[in-house]
Amino acid sequence: MDRELIIEQLKAFLRIPSISTDPAYAGDVRRAAEFVRDLLREAGLGNARLIEGNGHPLVYADWLEAPGKPTLLLYGHYDVQPADPIELWKSPPFEPEIRGDDIFARGAVDDKGQVMILVCAIRTLMERDGRLPVNVKVLIEGEEESGGGHIESYVQSHADELKADAAVICDTEMFAPGLPTLCIGLRGIVYGEIVVNGADRDLHSGVYGGAAPNAIQGAAEIVAALKGRDGRINIPGFYDRVAPPTSAEREAWARLPFDEERYRMDEVGASALTGEAGLSVIERTWVRPTLEVHGIRGGFIGEGAKTVIPATAVVKISARLVPDQRPDEAAEQIARAVAAACPAGISASFRMIHGAGPSMVNPEHPLILAAARVMTEVFSRETVYIRSGGSIPIVGLFQRALGLPSVMMGFGLPDDNLHAPNEKFHLPNLFAGIDSVVRYITVV
Amino acid sequence: MDRELIIEQLKAFLRIPSISTDPAYAGDVRRAAEFVRDLLREAGLGNARLIEGNGHPLVYADWLEAPGKPTLLLYGHYDVQPADPIELWKSPPFEPEIRGDDIFARGAVDDKGQVMILVCAIRTLMERDGRLPVNVKVLIEGEEESGGGHIESYVQSHADELKADAAVICDTEMFAPGLPTLCIGLRGIVYGEIVVNGADRDLHSGVYGGAAPNAIQGAAEIVAALKGRDGRINIPGFYDRVAPPTSAEREAWARLPFDEERYRMDEVGASALTGEAGLSVIERTWVRPTLEVHGIRGGFIGEGAKTVIPATAVVKISARLVPDQRPDEAAEQIARAVAAACPAGISASFRMIHGAGPSMVNPEHPLILAAARVMTEVFSRETVYIRSGGSIPIVGLFQRALGLPSVMMGFGLPDDNLHAPNEKFHLPNLFAGIDSVVRYITVV
Repeated sequence: MDRELIIEQLKAFLRIPSISTDPAYAGDVRRAAEFVRDLLREAGLGNARLIEGNGHPLVYADWLEAPGKPTLLLYGHYDVQPADPIELWKSPPFEPEIRGDDIFARGAVDDKGQVMILVCAIRTLMERDGRLPVNVKVLIEGEEESGGGHIESYVQSHADELKADAAVICDTEMFAPGLPTLCIGLRGIVYGEIVVNGADRDLHSGVYGGAAPNAIQGAAEIVAALKGRDGRINIPGFYDRVAPPTSAEREAWARLPFDEERYRMDEVGASALTGEAGLSVIERTWVRPTLEVHGIRGGFIGEGAKTVIPATAVVKISARLVPDQRPDEAAEQIARAVAAACPAGISASFRMIHGAGPSMVNPEHPLILAAARVMTEVFSRETVYIRSGGSIPIVGLFQRALGLPSVMMGFGLPDDNLHAPNEKFHLPNLFAGIDSVVRYITVV
Repeated sequence: MDRELIIEQLKAFLRIPSISTDPAYAGDVRRAAEFVRDLLREAGLGNARLIEGNGHPLVYADWLEAPGKPTLLLYGHYDVQPADPIELWKSPPFEPEIRGDDIFARGAVDDKGQVMILVCAIRTLMERDGRLPVNVKVLIEGEEESGGGHIESYVQSHADELKADAAVICDTEMFAPGLPTLCIGLRGIVYGEIVVNGADRDLHSGVYGGAAPNAIQGAAEIVAALKGRDGRINIPGFYDRVAPPTSAEREAWARLPFDEERYRMDEVGASALTGEAGLSVIERTWVRPTLEVHGIRGGFIGEGAKTVIPATAVVKISARLVPDQRPDEAAEQIARAVAAACPAGISASFRMIHGAGPSMVNPEHPLILAAARVMTEVFSRETVYIRSGGSIPIVGLFQRALGLPSVMMGFGLPDDNLHAPNEKFHLPNLFAGIDSVVRYITVV
C-alpha cells in the first residue's frame, strides 16, 4: 500500500472525535465506526458491516476462504479517550499534525493508528494476492475507553461464529524504541465513583465553619485513608489473591533495558517516583495492584474566592488488578473500606462503573512463538515478553468466552502520551507494524 | 415609603447578577453600582456618585446639614456570591421570587436586602421631614464577596472625608427569628489556593500506576494532614494567639436560645456536627479558628470514566481567624504546613488570595447601647449581643483607619441560606430593619 494514502486515511480517522465515554460525541463515535467499515470494504472485505446493540456499534468483517488454515480474530478499537486538559495540547487533539516522524492527535497510538496496522496489512495482501493465506475475522469495537458492555454480550452470544485459533490485538506498546515486544499479561481494573455527602446543602464557611461537616474534607480523608504514603493500599484483603511473578519472569525483566532515573525524569517527569518500597518499578507497574484517584468534583473551583462548605463531593477512582484478583470482590472490598474510612457527619458510598479481570497468555503457545519470530525478523532484534500495567478487558473475554490466546503485538512507544495531551504515534512503527502483521498472517 | 415600591426596587436590584469574583460579570457589577447610586438620589441624596478606582466602583453619597449632630457612616455591599451549584435553586437565582413571607434570590439577605434597609430608612425620613436628624455618609462597595482592595485603599487615603462617629452596617443576622441582635465580633479570614504538582503531565493510570505521583492523591493527603478528624487544625503555631472569650460572654451565650439537635437537623442538615471536642457549637463557630477546603480542581470530573493520573491539582482553602490571630502570620503558617505535609514526588505551595483580620467592638459604647435600645423597642424583646463566625473585613478597616466602632444591626435569619442555593430574605425583617434604622438615626 502507498504510504501517503495510509497517512491520509489515518489522518481522516483521527479527525473524528470518537470519545465513547461522553454521550455528546455519540454521533462522532458512529461516524468512526462507519469509517472503519468503509476502510475494511476498501481493503477487500466486502462483507464489512456494523453490528448494532446496546451501546456503540461493533465493526465486523471476515474472509474465510482458506480451508484448513488457521483463523485469526483481529481486534482493535475505534473509540478514544477524552482530550482534556485541552489547553495542554500543542496542536488541536482532533486536527492531526505530523511533527518529525510522529503524528500527533488523540487516538494516534490508542488505538486508531494500530487499527490501521490491521486494516492495511489485510489490504496489502489482498491487493498483492487477491486473497489471504489464513482466515480472518475482524472485530473493531467502540467502547474500549468507556468500559461499555456491547462487545462482551456480543462475544458471549456469538461464540460459535467467532471461533478462531488466536486473537491478534494491536493495542499495546514496545518496551523501548526498536525493541520488538509481545505483551503476555495485563492488569484488570475496577473503576467507580465515591459519592460523599455532608450537610444537606452548601453552607457558608464563616457561619458554619467549626460545626458543619465538609464533603471535600471528608473525601480527602477517605482518599488519604485508602492508600498510605508508603504506596500500600489500606484495603483489608486487597492483596490476598495477588500472585507474585515467576522467578523466570523476574530474571527476564532484570535484563530489560530500563533506566529508572531516565524513566523518572523523561517519562514520568516528577521529582520522585512513588509506590511500594522494596519492589522494582516494573513489578510495581505490572504485577502489583494500584489505587488511583482521577478527580474530585464538588464545591467551588471557579475563578476567585467562594467561601462555601461543600455538601457533596464525587471522587473518581480506580484500582488496577493483577492475577488472581477478581473485579467484583475488589469492588466490594473498596466499598467496605470507603464506608470504614468515613469521618463523622459524612456518608460515603462506592459504586463500580465498570470492571475487568487481569489476564495472562501462555508465552509457549505456538501462535505466540510465531509472532515473536516475525517481530524479531522485522526489527532485527530479539523479541521481549512483557506484561502491561494497563487493562484490555477483551483479552480476558476472548480467553473466557472463546478459549482464545491473545497475540498482543504492540507498536506504541513509552513516550506516546497515551490518555494524555499530545498523544502521538511514531510513523516508522506504523509501517513496521503493517510489515509484522503481513508476515505473521503469511507464516502462521 | 410604600411597601410595594420597596419590594419592586429590591426585585430590580436582585435581578442584576453582580458577582464580583467572576470577571465575566464585571458589567453587571457596574450596573448594580449605578442602580444603588440612582436609589440614593431618589432617596434625596443628590450628590450620590460612583467612585472609580482599582476594582469595582464604590457608591458614595452624603448629607451633612445637621451641624452639632453625630455623623454616621452607613455601609453595605451591592455585590453577591456566585450562584453555583445553580441546579439546586428552586427558582432562578437572579429572578427574585416571593414565596410566603420570603423573597428568594442570590443576594437577597447578603447584602442587597440590607442595603435597601439603609437606603429606604434615609428616603423615609427625607420624604417625611425633608431633612435628616443626623449627618450621614453612605459608602456601598462592590467587592465584599471577592476580597477586592478598592474600598481599603479608598478609606485609607480619604480618612478625613470619611470621619464619623460610628459606622452602621447591615450585613449580619439575628440569632433567632424575632430576637433583636447586635453583632460585636467577627472572625477574620485567610483565603488562598494550594497548587499541587506531581508528574509534568497527566499520565495513564494503567501504564504508570504504582510509580507516578498523583497530584490529587497528594492534595488529599495534604488536606487530610492539615486538619485532624478531631477538628483540630494541625498547623504549628496556629492557636498560639487565639484569645478565649470572657466569662461574661460565655455566660451570656449560655442563655441564648440554642438547641444543638435542632441546629444539626434543620440548619446544618447533617448526621453529626464536627469540630473540636469539648467546646460548644457557639464557641466553635464564633471564637475558634477554622480551616475549610472549598474545592479541588484537576484531573477528570466529567461524565464516565477516564483513567488518568492527574499532574496538577488546585485546592481552594480558607481559614477563619479569631482575635488575636493575624492574617499574614496565619498565611505563613499555612504555607509552611502545606510544604511540610507534601508527600514524595509532589510539590505544593500555598498562595494567599485575600486576608482580613478578626475584629471586636466595645459593647458598652454609647452608640452601640443606643442601637440595642432601638432594636429592643422595634422587636419588643431584649437585644442580645453575639459574635459572628463570618468575616466583614470592613469592620476592622473602619476601626483601624477611621477609629470608628461599627454598629452591626443585622436582619438576616439563620435559615436565609447565605452563600448557598435558595438564598432568601424574610420580608418582615426588611420592614423591621427600616423601622430600626429610622429610629436609630432619629435618637442618636
